Parts: sequence; structure tokens; C-alpha cells
Amino acid sequence: MSATTSTSLKEALAHACTDIEATIDALLPMVPGDESILLEAMRYAALGGGKRLRGFLAVEVASLFGADRKAALRVAASVELLHAYSLVHDDLPSMDDDDLRRGRPSTHRQFDEAIAILAGDALQTRAFEILLEDETSSDATIRSNLALALARASGAAGMVGGQVIDIRGEGRALPLDEVRRLHALKTGALIRYAAESGAILAGVTDDRRDAIVAYGQNLGTAFQVADDVLDTTASAEELGKTAGKDEASGKSTYVSLLGIDGARAEARRLSDQAREALSSFGAQAAALRALADYVVERRN
Amino acid sequence: MSATTSTSLKEALAHACTDIEATIDALLPMVPGDESILLEAMRYAALGGGKRLRGFLAVEVASLFGADRKAALRVAASVELLHAYSLVHDDLPSMDDDDLRRGRPSTHRQFDEAIAILAGDALQTRAFEILLEDETSSDATIRSNLALALARASGAAGMVGGQVIDIRGEGRALPLDEVRRLHALKTGALIRYAAESGAILAGVTDDRRDAIVAYGQNLGTAFQVADDVLDTTASAEELGKTAGKDEASGKSTYVSLLGIDGARAEARRLSDQAREALSSFGAQAAALRALADYVVERRN
Repeated sequence: MSATTSTSLKEALAHACTDIEATIDALLPMVPGDESILLEAMRYAALGGGKRLRGFLAVEVASLFGADRKAALRVAASVELLHAYSLVHDDLPSMDDDDLRRGRPSTHRQFDEAIAILAGDALQTRAFEILLEDETSSDATIRSNLALALARASGAAGMVGGQVIDIRGEGRALPLDEVRRLHALKTGALIRYAAESGAILAGVTDDRRDAIVAYGQNLGTAFQVADDVLDTTASAEELGKTAGKDEASGKSTYVSLLGIDGARAEARRLSDQAREALSSFGAQAAALRALADYVVERRN
Repeated sequence: MSATTSTSLKEALAHACTDIEATIDALLPMVPGDESILLEAMRYAALGGGKRLRGFLAVEVASLFGADRKAALRVAASVELLHAYSLVHDDLPSMDDDDLRRGRPSTHRQFDEAIAILAGDALQTRAFEILLEDETSSDATIRSNLALALARASGAAGMVGGQVIDIRGEGRALPLDEVRRLHALKTGALIRYAAESGAILAGVTDDRRDAIVAYGQNLGTAFQVADDVLDTTASAEELGKTAGKDEASGKSTYVSLLGIDGARAEARRLSDQAREALSSFGAQAAALRALADYVVERRN
């Protein structure tokens, strides 16, 4: 990717990050009473930084199709809350048992296990609630379609199903097809939804929505392959989370199946496919194209 | 309550139970692959019997207002899945640590903790998904309103907020006002929603919806007060779950605050208020009236 594109992508990412952070902040107001610790934990989990890849996708696709930015930021906040809930639950002792997330104690270490489980539960609920409120769109069909697509991407046939395949697969060799399926569900479905959500919000034609779905699908898989490479090559300091975890837990990864060079080539191929899916869009899709490069070239 | 009313209520409850069970069964189909254990756990948690009070409320109010029964059964299945998710998570070792639920091992004892957390997560998602699918209503505004009301009843400002107040209140005395608030959130909000959902589905006028909300609110509180009485007076065999838990965990309850007789009188008062809220409805509301008696007279 050219230096110019890279700079403008970084600026667009930083700009979106700031706005998404402020939107989440406003959508998770503190409350008085004994339940205030729940909101504290939800805010801790959801406002702790992160790349905001999913939120950025929602905002950027919405912008490509001319949707209202304020509405897009709500959709972006919603998908980030859904993502945050999945991280809180994945980090729990009975799952990945991870003490570190984004360079800070994970939610159950900062609070306790019960509060972490409940904060994750309530983050999921809030993600749906935000999409369904009138403020997201005045059109009930759009609100309903957004929430339905989020449910499909994140439930048993999506993200949570993928997480189950992942924990059941620890300590035994999975074939490449099963690893692909695992990640298509666990990570891919929500990234694909994030891109699609911007198209749903804008109410675009089916062929445009299909193109964005193809982009999101390839981008999501490229992201995961690159993640496997990073887990092998990067340090915990760079990642802000425990490194080398996949190998330690005996997980089959793109790297264990394809080797580092093979996995890098696979990530590049998927990134190219993501760019190709955008061929019918003009210069306004430049940031989305640059993002396809960024996800395979990033260092954390 | 008269013997005739009692008999017809029991018949209506049994009839609804059978239909709700069959609806849940169809809405949680098994899948092949490593994630099949997730569906097994979701089905185990959701199909293990139970009174189906919430589902019955949805079906009965929908019927009162002439809504389609098949659609009402989907709404009933949805609220029962939401309720099942809350029980699975409440039973976890880091929360109430309960090995027994509906006379069987709780979900994390039958499977394991990770699968129980994920099954609860996916049950919540599925509850929203079912409401948002076209099959629930052809009107997107109704679908969207149902899902929004469910989110409000079950999130941080509803059921999950109440659960946090509950676990934070263990081992210290809560005043009556706080116990009332705790239960209005933890149990009351979802029971109230269950009644309201039938009115939303039928698209009734605001005054009818308000009457049903008042009914659901009083019924939900009556149910919880009666539950506190049962926890003190009934055996584990009658309850199908551990008895005497509230006292053992040092929780403030209606019984510890009002005494058994005081709590029984409170339950009766609330039950009467629930009946009064139905005064503008005719004979078609007979089962709902009988239910107000049933919740305070039940033995489990």
C-alpha cells in the first residue's frame, strides 16, 4: 500500500476510533445503586481501547453509501459492544483463562468472575437494544434487519458456535477445512456483519450489499490468518495480550497447517480478494481497500 | 379460586406447556459438527420442563387480544429461552453455585462450565433472533418493538441489573425498598415483559397495553414474594431445586423482612392488584385472573 493511502487510512481509523469511543461512552451511562459496578465493568470492557476494526467497517461502509454518520456510529458502537462481550467471556477461567487483555487485566481479574459474566451478558443485550431504538433508524425494517443480522452473526450458527469448535478442538489436530470453518464462524461472521451493517443501514440494493458481504468475508478471514501469524511472531508487549497461546494450548492454526510463509501467502491472497470485491466502487472505497492491506500488514 | 377456574387454568397451562415445548424443540434444531454439544446444552437448559409461566403469559395475553397463536408461541418460546439463559448463568459456580435445577443436574454440572456459559450466551442471542424473524410478525415495527422491550427487560436496567444487586447484597441486610427494587428488576421485569409481549404482538391500544403491564408487574412481584415463602417452607423435592438457600446465603428476603405471615399477606395483596388491573376485560381474561391466584397458592 502506498504511503499516502496508509496515512489517510490511519487518519480515518483514528477519527472513527475517537467518535466510536465517545458514542460508546454516551450509550453506557453510569447509574446509582448497587448495580453501578455492573456498568463500571461494562465500561471497563467496552472502553478499553482496541483497534475498533468492526466499528470502523460499519462507519466506513455506511459512509460509502451516504448513510447518516450519527446513526452509523450507533451501529458501530453496537458491534463493538457485542465484540467486547465475546472477549470478556472468552477470557474467563473456564474458557481461555486469560489474565491480560489490551495490555490491562481482563475483566474478571479487574472485577470478579460473576461480575464479568454478567457484564458480558448485559453488553450483548445492550448491543441489540441500541440497534432497536428509534435513534438508530426511523425505519423499523432497517432496525429489525440490523438486529437480525447481528443475531445470526453472533449466535450458535456464528461467533459462539465458532468458539465452541475452538475449545473442543484444543489438544487435537484439526484439518485445514475445519480450521477455516472455525474462523469463518468465530471471527469471520462478526467482521462480515460489521461491513454488512453499514449497507443495511443505508438500505442499498442487493448487489451492493452482496459485494460488501464478499469484502467483509474475505477481510475477516485475512484478519484471522494474520492473527495466527502474529501469535507466533509478535511479543506480548506488541499484542497487548498473551503471545504464543495457540501453540501452548495445542490449537491447530493456519500457521501450524500452512507454515508461516504459507499463512502469510494465504492472508495476502484473501486480502486481494477483499479488494477485488470492491471493484465496482470508486475512489470513495479507498479506505476500505487500504484496510484490506492493513489487516495483513499490522504488527498488533 | 373456585375449583372450576382452577381446573380450567391447569388445562390451559398444560395445553400451553405442550405447545411451547414443541415450539422450542423446533426452534433449536440439532446441528452436525463439533458445535453440536452447544445445541445439546441449549436444548438441555431450555427443554427441561419448568412451569412456563412467562411463555403462558405471552400466549394467554396474545389470545385475549386475538393475536395469531403460532406467532404467540414463537414469542413465548423466545421469553422462555431468555429465562433459561438467565438460569444457566445464575447456577454457575461463581454465582449461585447450584448443582440442581428442575430436579436435574444444572447445565454446567451436566456439561461443563465453558459450555454452560456459551449455551447461555447463545440462548440469549436466539431469543432475540426468533423475535426478529419474519415468521413472528409480518410487521417490522412489531418485531422491532418486541425485541426492544425484551432488551429493556433483560439487560443492565432489568434482569441482569437485579441479579447484580442480588449477589452484591448477600451477607448484609437490605431494607425492604431495596429488596422490592431488586425483585422488580431481577424477576419482575421479565414477567412483566412476558405479559406485555402478547399485547405488543396484537398491536393493541396504549390503555390496553398499560393495563396488561400493570397486571404483569403485580403478578411478577406476587410471584417473587411467594417464591421467598416457598424457599422457607417447601422441601427440595417439592421445589426441584435446593431449598432454604436464601437463609443459608444470608440474603434479605420478603420473609426475613416481613415474616412468613406478612409475606403471605403481601403476596395476596399483589395478586389482588393484578386481578384489578384486568377489570376492563371480560370473561376472556378468566385464565389470567386465575393465574394471579395460582402464583400465590402454588406449592413449587
